[in-house]
Amino acid sequence: MATKPASFHEMLKDSPKNWGRWGANDELGALNFLTSEEVLRGVKSVKHGKVFTLGVPLARPQGDPLYPSRSQPIRTMAMDKGFYLNGRATPMAGGLEYADDIIVMYLQGTTQYDALGHVWYGDKIYNGYDAKTTIGGLQKCSVQALAEHGIVGRAVLLDIARLKGKASLDMGERITLEDIKAAEKKQNTKIEKHDILLIHTGWLKKFYDGGSAAIFPNGAFNEPGLGYSPELVKWFYEMEIPSIGSDTIGSEQTFHDESGTMLVLHMALLCHLGVVFNEIDWTEDLAADCAKDGQYTFLFVGAPLKVVGGAGSPVNPVAIK
Amino acid sequence: MATKPASFHEMLKDSPKNWGRWGANDELGALNFLTSEEVLRGVKSVKHGKVFTLGVPLARPQGDPLYPSRSQPIRTMAMDKGFYLNGRATPMAGGLEYADDIIVMYLQGTTQYDALGHVWYGDKIYNGYDAKTTIGGLQKCSVQALAEHGIVGRAVLLDIARLKGKASLDMGERITLEDIKAAEKKQNTKIEKHDILLIHTGWLKKFYDGGSAAIFPNGAFNEPGLGYSPELVKWFYEMEIPSIGSDTIGSEQTFHDESGTMLVLHMALLCHLGVVFNEIDWTEDLAADCAKDGQYTFLFVGAPLKVVGGAGSPVNPVAIK
Amino acid sequence: MATKPASFHEMLKDSPKNWGRWGANDELGALNFLTSEEVLRGVKSVKHGKVFTLGVPLARPQGDPLYPSRSQPIRTMAMDKGFYLNGRATPMAGGLEYADDIIVMYLQGTTQYDALGHVWYGDKIYNGYDAKTTIGGLQKCSVQALAEHGIVGRAVLLDIARLKGKASLDMGERITLEDIKAAEKKQNTKIEKHDILLIHTGWLKKFYDGGSAAIFPNGAFNEPGLGYSPELVKWFYEMEIPSIGSDTIGSEQTFHDESGTMLVLHMALLCHLGVVFNEIDWTEDLAADCAKDGQYTFLFVGAPLKVVGGAGSPVNPVAIK
Amino acid sequence: MATKPASFHEMLKDSPKNWGRWGANDELGALNFLTSEEVLRGVKSVKHGKVFTLGVPLARPQGDPLYPSRSQPIRTMAMDKGFYLNGRATPMAGGLEYADDIIVMYLQGTTQYDALGHVWYGDKIYNGYDAKTTIGGLQKCSVQALAEHGIVGRAVLLDIARLKGKASLDMGERITLEDIKAAEKKQNTKIEKHDILLIHTGWLKKFYDGGSAAIFPNGAFNEPGLGYSPELVKWFYEMEIPSIGSDTIGSEQTFHDESGTMLVLHMALLCHLGVVFNEIDWTEDLAADCAKDGQYTFLFVGAPLKVVGGAGSPVNPVAIK
Repeated sequence: MATKPASFHEMLKDSPKNWGRWGANDELGALNFLTSEEVLRGVKSVKHGKVFTLGVPLARPQGDPLYPSRSQPIRTMAMDKGFYLNGRATPMAGGLEYADDIIVMYLQGTTQYDALGHVWYGDKIYNGYDAKTTIGGLQKCSVQALAEHGIVGRAVLLDIARLKGKASLDMGERITLEDIKAAEKKQNTKIEKHDILLIHTGWLKKFYDGGSAAIFPNGAFNEPGLGYSPELVKWFYEMEIPSIGSDTIGSEQTFHDESGTMLVLHMALLCHLGVVFNEIDWTEDLAADCAKDGQYTFLFVGAPLKVVGGAGSPVNPVAIK
Repeated sequence: MATKPASFHEMLKDSPKNWGRWGANDELGALNFLTSEEVLRGVKSVKHGKVFTLGVPLARPQGDPLYPSRSQPIRTMAMDKGFYLNGRATPMAGGLEYADDIIVMYLQGTTQYDALGHVWYGDKIYNGYDAKTTIGGLQKCSVQALAEHGIVGRAVLLDIARLKGKASLDMGERITLEDIKAAEKKQNTKIEKHDILLIHTGWLKKFYDGGSAAIFPNGAFNEPGLGYSPELVKWFYEMEIPSIGSDTIGSEQTFHDESGTMLVLHMALLCHLGVVFNEIDWTEDLAADCAKDGQYTFLFVGAPLKVVGGAGSPVNPVAIK
Repeated sequence: MATKPASFHEMLKDSPKNWGRWGANDELGALNFLTSEEVLRGVKSVKHGKVFTLGVPLARPQGDPLYPSRSQPIRTMAMDKGFYLNGRATPMAGGLEYADDIIVMYLQGTTQYDALGHVWYGDKIYNGYDAKTTIGGLQKCSVQALAEHGIVGRAVLLDIARLKGKASLDMGERITLEDIKAAEKKQNTKIEKHDILLIHTGWLKKFYDGGSAAIFPNGAFNEPGLGYSPELVKWFYEMEIPSIGSDTIGSEQTFHDESGTMLVLHMALLCHLGVVFNEIDWTEDLAADCAKDGQYTFLFVGAPLKVVGGAGSPVNPVAIK
Repeated sequence: MATKPASFHEMLKDSPKNWGRWGANDELGALNFLTSEEVLRGVKSVKHGKVFTLGVPLARPQGDPLYPSRSQPIRTMAMDKGFYLNGRATPMAGGLEYADDIIVMYLQGTTQYDALGHVWYGDKIYNGYDAKTTIGGLQKCSVQALAEHGIVGRAVLLDIARLKGKASLDMGERITLEDIKAAEKKQNTKIEKHDILLIHTGWLKKFYDGGSAAIFPNGAFNEPGLGYSPELVKWFYEMEIPSIGSDTIGSEQTFHDESGTMLVLHMALLCHLGVVFNEIDWTEDLAADCAKDGQYTFLFVGAPLKVVGGAGSPVNPVAIK
């Protein structure tokens, strides 16, 4: 590891960019690749009618998997049978009673999409918009833009845990471009241009089995995942990958091996290329099914909420095989 | 209108019930009809790869359409460029900065699904569970159960506004079984068993054009929509409809014409039959497209969030034609 | 009314300022006047041991009085007897059960104190700090500073409603320096240097009697209260008034008669002089008692919460006569 | 320690009760002792005009002291200078700009008062009201009742840390009636009937010095404080103590030495006698001052917010010496 993390300005100065590629007003980034043709390609990949919902449970009493700066969603009742039992509420005409609830949560405090304006370095977010447009709510590149379009297309699951012969990757373990290619080969699945990628690491299952201590030993946030290399970024650029997701909180290796820099792919892919990040996916059941039937491709439907100005949104992505 | 609204106990005493049909532990209700075969039937209805996202914008500064007892979602920033500008926050190693936000909202304060335990009369919710199980959070029939399964299948849009030759139905206007059949005929679209139904009324557009005053004149909540009749319920029962949605807040006629009773279909369909309600859908663009190309059927993907104990959940449903 | 509201830069260019008076690091403003001597002066004014709490009820189901940009506090239960009744919660060792609740509210969404950094014009808040220090939370002049000190001293109630012979002042009605002097005379109460002032207008009672419509006809926010004049400001400056409060939402006349400018005293008193504003006080009972016993002076204890970075804080001020 | 914690029904079957003492409709409990005479007695104890505010900072980025089932308050901005800088907000007529914020918090997630309906055992809260009245919000004995009255009177600080010659009491350390009497003697301060009691343990300073780990080693909640004995309860009953507070989260010894039962004084004092509990007080500075000038008595002003139905309320209590 370098003595001092490299700055993105230096590290990514030759890294490809899609800024301006879809016009000065673009807020969709690589979702522009998801045309009707790609939707039909996704639809064609459905063989059995099996449905997998990839969201994690939200607001569990035992706690949810969260990036350390965020806190646990709080769900409370505004109305329930108790209100009728003690006379606080009266049934409606006819006798209808109801339960109603409220949530307080970080918009990225569960399975979620990052807006394209969620992260940046220096003074510009994706497509060159001023980072000051994020103040008070994203005036540009909010999650609403992604939600209006939807993330619908063919997806490929890359089961890197099985590739490595592990139940889960290790803390900080890097996934390389070679690993992707090895997974393609092992899974007998060719990644095509414009495929959505889902990386299975087994990491999230550690949380549900062992709690926060299992994935944050001593409070350290250091996840396994795709790790930055110029080759990997070039491959994403050439393959025109619209979106990636994973069963980790950050959907990439937290610390870059060579430089110690954090979350480099959020810069090189999301901020430079407009690749849309989907995080905290529950891929365990899907991965098991793919391993069983050998079909690693499917129609993927990701539909975050149209949060006005939102830097992110909860979502329950759907894989249809 | 009757002098006193009829009670559901009396009104629905002969109305069909699916309680116990899928076992004593069932929490999915009519979603049980959505098998893999139905998913494939939905997939087959896709012709063009067009995607319509049916969620409404969430947390607009100008306000969102809401049931009167709920209040406007509040979204605020926990981090944005301003925090870096005044030194409250320091970029991460490498230079990454980010924006992050928090939401406070009624779980049914936007486009949403009702849990099967959301409404009831007397002491029992769907499938006969004790209504006291709703206290503090739904121990049974929460939205989590629906979200784990997903609402995926073939859907039919019934454009009742166009059928009636109106931009929008009128306040309190009833849609009958005859209207459904007339729409089938006019649209040249046969509703099949297990189809998901989406009713377009034009009502929600009134809100976005004219604000709350346009749909709640003098504060009155009195929406148009499907109106209760024993025939209509029998038809739903026999057609085994898994789910309905509409571009209104309640997805049914608010007051029953004959009895003045409120929200009868929430009892006869949701509570008795386990039909899943989806509300506040933005169907305007989808309806315009269907009218143009004559294709009123599509793959529908509804994926509420897996809110533990939730009486409802926000969602951004997707129609793929 | 002028055709265009005057700008504060122009209007207040000769208005007195306390910036720098208590040093470059001051965040207390006119609370610096509230020394131990003033506390003792307040204590001496107590004659009968009567206590009046001036906060308004918070989170009423029927709604609270609010500035239009804010929304109603939401209080929900995190635990109550219902949780024990249906088995969600288990009593503690010994049998203890408890109720617990959560609140979501604007910090100024009830009886409250404004932080000295709550309002400004141009680029500087009180004492010349950069207004950018407000971003993400008040780094300077937050309500925490006021709360650490407390607002304790002698206060005088000025019953302007009784002075004018009205139950309530009219919408937009101005209170002048002459009115203050007339009230002193009528009440036989001399305002002394460093007295805290409480203005009774009767306005808030209109809200509790008639709802929002009574104080915001057609949604218009146009309150009665102290109205700006250079003489009035000079008097505050010379009398070294530490704090004012009133039974209105803004504690001043909303629109300046001559110029149509809004909330001028928030600029001339709070921002220039560091006079601390207390708002939405329930003065009705206190005023009635003062009218009865002729004692309009009392020990005042205002203790907002020590909200870190807070632009304001709820409070329940206490008058002890 | 007993093998099984004793039940309150058994343990407190002969413990005195004030239920019914002030009528069937009483919701004030021992605050009934705080008459005008007691207020005047408190006022008379003021000698120097020194003011101590006893609230702790609220919503610190580093975290606040909290009972383990609660979570950290979240304060976010709804408006600040950033909104004007990027054009999201426009100054008001004249040029006024403002900052505004929102809080989400447990009502007992900082320095606070417990409502008399906050805790109970069996089916009855204080004064015999049905515990079901807590469902959805306290219909009886909410904190609003206490807040309307105010907690104003003479208080005595008992500096038990200094008595024991420690900076802080130890985890789980018991304070006995003998300790109270020893403190009276050492401090040369006689506790009078109807005095409010404040117990200084030094415990909270450990939190601010060492974080959660310092007061919750291995997550264990086991505070020092007044510990149950029949003699202690009898003394409270006979002295007619209206309210107690301390610099701990629970304001009593967590586990009873002899029986292992939790929070016995919440039952014997709060629930049986209506003694009002004030918790998480910052008594460090006040205690140091009392040690210095030898004056341990003062006017105490506690004014929780009038939260409708609230099980508790944040507060910033004031001691005036």
